[in-house]
Amino acid sequence: MKIKLQEDVLKDQNLAAEFNREVFKKNKILVINLMSSPGAGKTTLLEETVKALADEFTIGVIEGDLATERDAERLRSLGIKTVQINTVGGCHLDARMIAKTIPEFDFQTMDILFIENIGNLVCPAGYDLGQNYKVVVLSVPEGNDKIPKYPVMFKRSDVTIINKIDLLPYVSFYLDEAQNDLMAINPQAQLMALSARTGDGMEKWINWIKDSYQRCIKH
Amino acid sequence: MKIKLQEDVLKDQNLAAEFNREVFKKNKILVINLMSSPGAGKTTLLEETVKALADEFTIGVIEGDLATERDAERLRSLGIKTVQINTVGGCHLDARMIAKTIPEFDFQTMDILFIENIGNLVCPAGYDLGQNYKVVVLSVPEGNDKIPKYPVMFKRSDVTIINKIDLLPYVSFYLDEAQNDLMAINPQAQLMALSARTGDGMEKWINWIKDSYQRCIKH
Repeated sequence: MKIKLQEDVLKDQNLAAEFNREVFKKNKILVINLMSSPGAGKTTLLEETVKALADEFTIGVIEGDLATERDAERLRSLGIKTVQINTVGGCHLDARMIAKTIPEFDFQTMDILFIENIGNLVCPAGYDLGQNYKVVVLSVPEGNDKIPKYPVMFKRSDVTIINKIDLLPYVSFYLDEAQNDLMAINPQAQLMALSARTGDGMEKWINWIKDSYQRCIKH
Repeated sequence: MKIKLQEDVLKDQNLAAEFNREVFKKNKILVINLMSSPGAGKTTLLEETVKALADEFTIGVIEGDLATERDAERLRSLGIKTVQINTVGGCHLDARMIAKTIPEFDFQTMDILFIENIGNLVCPAGYDLGQNYKVVVLSVPEGNDKIPKYPVMFKRSDVTIINKIDLLPYVSFYLDEAQNDLMAINPQAQLMALSARTGDGMEKWINWIKDSYQRCIKH
């Protein structure tokens, strides 16, 4: 299916988000919008996630960065179709940018699309890309106080991943405080603690994606 | 001296930045705008910096956060006059916000003002607050690829601090690559590697502040 972008879609963020959602739904694609501070480990998490899912699912990735194709190249080296968006100065992805990438993918064969947003714990929180789920990654060296200090992001995300738990012995981060702070802001949120680098805790995240695919797409 | 804010100053960012610069200059205050990703350690660095300088200088702090007074309270517990700005959803401080805090300080007795910006490696880079220096903090768990991936921030900062070097044994961060990437983007930049937590490397940073005070203020 060749997807045509109409001009008015690209003039309005809400229209573009609805357009994306419609395209994703029609093509039975689970879409996850991955957000975090710079350096929280989104790309490493994506690499390990893709490795764990690639036998079962056809995966695509949209990589958002201010500059460089470094992250896209990391995913492409795993054989994953990846489109890089460079925002130059832009601090978040928006639905129009996502809509413009749609013709570059073969959505008929795709099962899961990951969108790696710009590293920014503030601006991306407010933008609907047409995804099924918003997932925020917080890494333990950042400190658990980031949840109350950047509440909008954690309030609007369906899943909060605590990444880099292999560094817990070396930094001040308290998982029980993070859990309490998250529940105070967003009682429906799911919290998953893991290390993408060591693999510790990854199973819960991978199973959550598989369950979400069953629930949202194959139901 | 009671400083009066004129209405037009608060209508225009450039006017506000010039107003701030004029006030700081007249009162012989060194002003440092501290920026980074969330959780790179700006507040811990500030705590240790203030402890090292408090005998010699009268210091003030402006704390920028989306929400909470947590960081301001950490500085106040050290006896430092600190004004908290909560931006609610705002992703950076701007010159007008800084201008509004001016009446809260006694600038006649102040030597150094630190402005801790919102944790965000993108948006604060573009905003002139009227400071003498822009300093960006990059922490080693974020990875050295953040310099080419967020080039505007590193291009516009006079000093790049690599913080949390105590974590170098546990993460993938290469100081020589960081140095090369920084020099490619901003050959005038100074790079200082330190750990605010252990104190390792802090002397160079403290000496740089003292030298800057001599150079900019007491000359």
